[in-house]
Amino acid sequence: MTPPAEDGRLGLNQMTVPRWTVGQAVDGCARHGIRHIGLWRDKVAEFGVAASARAARDAGVAISSLCRGGWFPAASRGERRDRIEDNRRAIEEARGLGTDTLVLVCGPAPDRDLDRARRMVEEAVAELAPYAAECGVRLGVEPLHPMFAADRSVITTLAEASAIAERHPLERVGVLVDAYHVWWDPAVYTEIARAGRRIFGFHINDWIVPLPDLLFGRGMIGDGVIELRRLRQAVDGAGYAGPIEVEIFNRAINAMPGDDLLRLIKERYLAHVA
Amino acid sequence: MTPPAEDGRLGLNQMTVPRWTVGQAVDGCARHGIRHIGLWRDKVAEFGVAASARAARDAGVAISSLCRGGWFPAASRGERRDRIEDNRRAIEEARGLGTDTLVLVCGPAPDRDLDRARRMVEEAVAELAPYAAECGVRLGVEPLHPMFAADRSVITTLAEASAIAERHPLERVGVLVDAYHVWWDPAVYTEIARAGRRIFGFHINDWIVPLPDLLFGRGMIGDGVIELRRLRQAVDGAGYAGPIEVEIFNRAINAMPGDDLLRLIKERYLAHVA
Repeated sequence: MTPPAEDGRLGLNQMTVPRWTVGQAVDGCARHGIRHIGLWRDKVAEFGVAASARAARDAGVAISSLCRGGWFPAASRGERRDRIEDNRRAIEEARGLGTDTLVLVCGPAPDRDLDRARRMVEEAVAELAPYAAECGVRLGVEPLHPMFAADRSVITTLAEASAIAERHPLERVGVLVDAYHVWWDPAVYTEIARAGRRIFGFHINDWIVPLPDLLFGRGMIGDGVIELRRLRQAVDGAGYAGPIEVEIFNRAINAMPGDDLLRLIKERYLAHVA
Repeated sequence: MTPPAEDGRLGLNQMTVPRWTVGQAVDGCARHGIRHIGLWRDKVAEFGVAASARAARDAGVAISSLCRGGWFPAASRGERRDRIEDNRRAIEEARGLGTDTLVLVCGPAPDRDLDRARRMVEEAVAELAPYAAECGVRLGVEPLHPMFAADRSVITTLAEASAIAERHPLERVGVLVDAYHVWWDPAVYTEIARAGRRIFGFHINDWIVPLPDLLFGRGMIGDGVIELRRLRQAVDGAGYAGPIEVEIFNRAINAMPGDDLLRLIKERYLAHVA
């Protein structure tokens, strides 16, 4: 394995190189001295939980998080129950992988009633948190950009995510800070300070203009308008000393040869974040 | 002129039927009993300020607002000065039209520094407010959806818009509430109540899934997920009794024959808003 990149905090979110299997992704990280990886459930399902854990261990790469649980609001009690059960399986997968953090993307409302959907999220997190704690897994509520309020997450600000987290012990439920989702928020620095040691992860990427797509429009670090170093300093100042995961959903970037992409990411990380 | 639609509050924002001149638009409103219209500066420039005012008066349609001033942040002092001057002209055009409200879309940052750009907005509004008051024109700060933070407005929430407005007398600076921009905000109802009599306008449209486009992706009233009637009741409850302007930027809707579109808008307004 090559020496770790820079400060040893750089991590790869697997969906930045979506063509790679878990095995290829952890080997890619190892080749480039990237010490952390965030995995996705569908990729882990293909490769196997135990095989994924073993591949990461053999490569010397820590699994920083599992994406993703959540998607809680639903029209019927039965559907909400099914989603809780699916989240229990996600918690068990996280335990099997040996990662301490399950990322929650909370889901959209089943109808026009956002308030009710937000309550469903709170209730689901409350139901899952004790089981997650038993399994040694923390739940990280990720607020999504408000442009996803209708189809991916009724939780759109760090303030809302922290309000949910703060109903639980510090070590059980926290928040994810993803630059793409939070950079616009006039309260972002206040809310990062408030979240403090409840920050369970920090994802980086950039916001480019014009935005090519809502979901697959994220930019390469440094190509956009986000003050990434300032955000990094803010999460550090709040007490976060964990991995910094690069998570870029963008068709052109995701199609790059993985090794070229990891080289570029390291270069940009040094120039704009570290 | 046919009898006024419903409660007499329905208004048309001109860019919902962008192919119409000012003259065609006010006549269209008159044909359909729509008593209010929001005009745009480029359309007014083509038709003439005095001719626009006369056409609206002759048609019996009140000009509810002029869109738009703003676009304040800029890299150099000279550019910021030019923009202030352009806004003075917009204020004079509003006076010439006989409308009491100039809508401000505040503009993006010239670099990555959102805080500095927000201060530029505050300063520009402070400089313009006394002149606007002399001209009998109120400034309405319109927060834009956070997905426009990089390219259209560093002011993205009602809370920020109210914070700017509250530095000024009640009758001089207020806020615009546009459903598309604010519906996702967990604080939207609190902030509508806070804005109270500073609400200078209420724009309606809808948020459809999937969103076809950021700028031109607005949906027809009732086709999306926004609780429009609840928002209308909230602005009413806050003390707003003014026009309710339909503002839909959407290529398919904007291409409809104007009379068909106005009939559809009236139908949807009754079903989902009034």
